[in-house]
Amino acid sequence: MDTKNQLNDRRNFLRSSGILGAGLLVPNVNMASSGTFPINDNIHEFGKREGYTEKISILVSMMDWMRATVLRSVEGISQKELDFLLDKDSNSIGAMLMHLAATERFYQIHTFDGKEWGDFDEKDMDRWSVGSQLGDRARKEIKGNPITYYTDQLEEVRGFTLAELKNRDDQWLMEATPFFDSQPTNNYCKWFHVIEHESNHNGQIKFIKSRVV
Amino acid sequence: MDTKNQLNDRRNFLRSSGILGAGLLVPNVNMASSGTFPINDNIHEFGKREGYTEKISILVSMMDWMRATVLRSVEGISQKELDFLLDKDSNSIGAMLMHLAATERFYQIHTFDGKEWGDFDEKDMDRWSVGSQLGDRARKEIKGNPITYYTDQLEEVRGFTLAELKNRDDQWLMEATPFFDSQPTNNYCKWFHVIEHESNHNGQIKFIKSRVV
Repeated sequence: MDTKNQLNDRRNFLRSSGILGAGLLVPNVNMASSGTFPINDNIHEFGKREGYTEKISILVSMMDWMRATVLRSVEGISQKELDFLLDKDSNSIGAMLMHLAATERFYQIHTFDGKEWGDFDEKDMDRWSVGSQLGDRARKEIKGNPITYYTDQLEEVRGFTLAELKNRDDQWLMEATPFFDSQPTNNYCKWFHVIEHESNHNGQIKFIKSRVV
Repeated sequence: MDTKNQLNDRRNFLRSSGILGAGLLVPNVNMASSGTFPINDNIHEFGKREGYTEKISILVSMMDWMRATVLRSVEGISQKELDFLLDKDSNSIGAMLMHLAATERFYQIHTFDGKEWGDFDEKDMDRWSVGSQLGDRARKEIKGNPITYYTDQLEEVRGFTLAELKNRDDQWLMEATPFFDSQPTNNYCKWFHVIEHESNHNGQIKFIKSRVV
């Protein structure tokens, strides 16, 4: 394999593995930092965040990173794309975004207020149950909105999560109730699930978006 | 809404929100635990793992949880389902599983050996580049295998990750190089990406599996 092909292969490899990005130029050095990262635009350095305890800071780092990744998938998306149904059993991208907000809201109630799953008041059920359950009702009802309809609500819900996490400590992360598989499940796990759940649907969002007709 | 409907609604709600699971019966109490969790079957209690430092234990907890979730999606899956292509641009479930293993392997080389992304030796490129890049070659080449072909390799790669993480400490998590968006990206972020990346493709795996014809 000659050098030109090697370079092209590497370039193609880097491109397809998604690492090349247009970003700030930084010196190519190893930087170990144990400092606190105040509000900055760099979501790629996980660590202590001002106002949050140590392990909660990691959750916040992950939330920020995951949310930025989801938002990147829907940047500039049109209403047509948001409402598109790939097939009769599919969820629209808009419905899935609502679903992310609904899921996070329900985990707020469950972990911050200590309510059993499902023991949600009427106001929350009215607002979030269709998004939470997806399916036929979501296909019928969640459509005709611009992207800001969804991102505003995602931001609103996330704002509340972050405010509440400022009032919790690392010990709270270890509190558990029987939950997944009826096993003791701690708040760390529950909130990790909220975060990975965004990635789960982000994969579907990207799959659908590339197939809009 | 009468009581019977309320109970049915709640049951349907719980079912559709995916929380009901057949599992061990445990007392319905809040349990805060700060102890170390030795090898046990309960992946839902994130925390200190024997042999790993504190924050690395959290990564390991998340890895275990995410992997179990992916494996649940493909439990008992047939070769036909593994090889199914939803359309001509789609990846098969089998190829996506290979992609998860390839991605993890490349992050091992990058973060454990300090290699630039793409600077992988011939042996690793031969084994993993098709899975890493997906696309046409993966559609042509990654098929005709039972589920164990994929899960064995996932397990092999993960075994190496876990062994290497035992030799790293929490400070290593904070070491950063310019990476995502050319920004300083620490190992915590890179390994979180490996984990959420599994969820991203798990969402696609579930989407495809429910549409196999």
